[in-house]
Amino acid sequence: MFISFEGTEGVGKSTLIAKLNEYLIGQNKTVLLTREPGGTAVAEQIRHLLLSTEHSEAICHDTELLLMYAGRAQHLENKVLPALAAGQIVLCDRFTDASFAYQCAGRGLSHEKLALLNQNFVPRMPELTFWLDAPIETGMARARARGALDRFEQEKTEFFSRVRAGYAQLHQQHSERIKRLDATQSADDVFAQALAYLQAAL
Amino acid sequence: MFISFEGTEGVGKSTLIAKLNEYLIGQNKTVLLTREPGGTAVAEQIRHLLLSTEHSEAICHDTELLLMYAGRAQHLENKVLPALAAGQIVLCDRFTDASFAYQCAGRGLSHEKLALLNQNFVPRMPELTFWLDAPIETGMARARARGALDRFEQEKTEFFSRVRAGYAQLHQQHSERIKRLDATQSADDVFAQALAYLQAAL
Ligand SMILES: Nc1ncnc2c1ncn2[C@@H]1O[C@H](COP(=O)(O)OP(=O)(O)OP(=O)(O)O)[C@@H](O)[C@H]1O
Ligand SMILES: Nc1ncnc2c1ncn2[C@@H]1O[C@H](COP(=O)(O)OP(=O)(O)OP(=O)(O)O)[C@@H](O)[C@H]1O
Ligand SMILES: [Mg+2]
Ligand SMILES: [Mg+2]
Repeated sequence: MFISFEGTEGVGKSTLIAKLNEYLIGQNKTVLLTREPGGTAVAEQIRHLLLSTEHSEAICHDTELLLMYAGRAQHLENKVLPALAAGQIVLCDRFTDASFAYQCAGRGLSHEKLALLNQNFVPRMPELTFWLDAPIETGMARARARGALDRFEQEKTEFFSRVRAGYAQLHQQHSERIKRLDATQSADDVFAQALAYLQAAL
Repeated sequence: MFISFEGTEGVGKSTLIAKLNEYLIGQNKTVLLTREPGGTAVAEQIRHLLLSTEHSEAICHDTELLLMYAGRAQHLENKVLPALAAGQIVLCDRFTDASFAYQCAGRGLSHEKLALLNQNFVPRMPELTFWLDAPIETGMARARARGALDRFEQEKTEFFSRVRAGYAQLHQQHSERIKRLDATQSADDVFAQALAYLQAAL
């Protein structure tokens, strides 16, 4: 089973993944925790390029999109697909929905470009996606408390509002796969919301 | 005018570019010398990922292709297109034909995948492409004499034979754009072959 976690900065994705991991281990499941961009040695180097704030040159929008999919291709082939083939439960922090929300809704790239990358370079989609939804300021306040901001986190509130609207659009279009969690609640409450969906799906 | 230079390792692309640059400067032209993968700060970092032999993990074929196009998008938008708009002559060491020859003919990726990346991420093609053609061993012997081999140069002869066949196929399909130069000849003779085509095109 392949589960992805989506949402704007600091909404609590990593916190929820840790709680679900603990729960699943208690159920004697073998779990792979992973993330995008990143997840393998080469993909983590691509992540570094994507998140670094040290570039002497701005990364173009198409470049950002193609780097995301380069890392994703590596991560799928070398880590996600083998784990799924071995019967593991894969918990992945961000996946293709993030590309739609950030690169299309956020940056303004066309949906067609993304669809064609998905069709040609993404052989497997998650069965279940948790979208942790909260007002931008809620997550940003949590993320800010955590330390230095990466290249995406340095974007303005309007950018993240578009990203959040992108997630809302995906949620409407793929309501069978994408479950919205109210991420303004406590971490334990968010976990309880997710667990109800997970138990229905398992 | 946008001119690209293609061919397997060590056939003499860089040598020819230097000679043409010198010639064009003598004609009072403004020339931009550039290369792929690479050509801008961010694209050179992507080049480093692509050519490095230090990875603890093999780069997947789709990843290699997408990294090439990520760098290309950056290079086009931030360097090639502005130079062309300013009326400069752009001499580019490798371009999309190399992706066909190396990633499709060489690695076995489908032509359709490449075509769709070209259609969506390459707004401008060269008007003229010089394909320096020579037996694989001729170029490899020249390249080997030059020092340590990069990730591509470490491939086997069969790989480069497929790459060369890929270039031959492109040359047949795009004979108006792609000019074959006999790269077994001396550097001065290769330059003379190129110059004849260039003078006809200018
Ligand atoms: N439901 C919650 N209520 C309050 N604080 C929370 C909640 N969930 C997580 N946090 C805290 O908010 C901060 C951000 O949480 P977390 O790192 O899980 O978010 P994230 O979505 O993974 O962020 P990022 O997008 O940066 O990876 C952490 O300090 C975490 O402890
Ligand atoms: N026509 C030629 N005859 C003999 N030697 C040549 C010729 N052209 C170039 N050389 C020499 O061969 C070596 C490789 O040439 P060059 O670097 O121009 O090739 P290249 O195609 O740019 O290689 P690469 O694919 O590695 O960038 C150099 O040492 C160069 O001086
Ligand atoms: Mg996180
Ligand atoms: Mg060269």
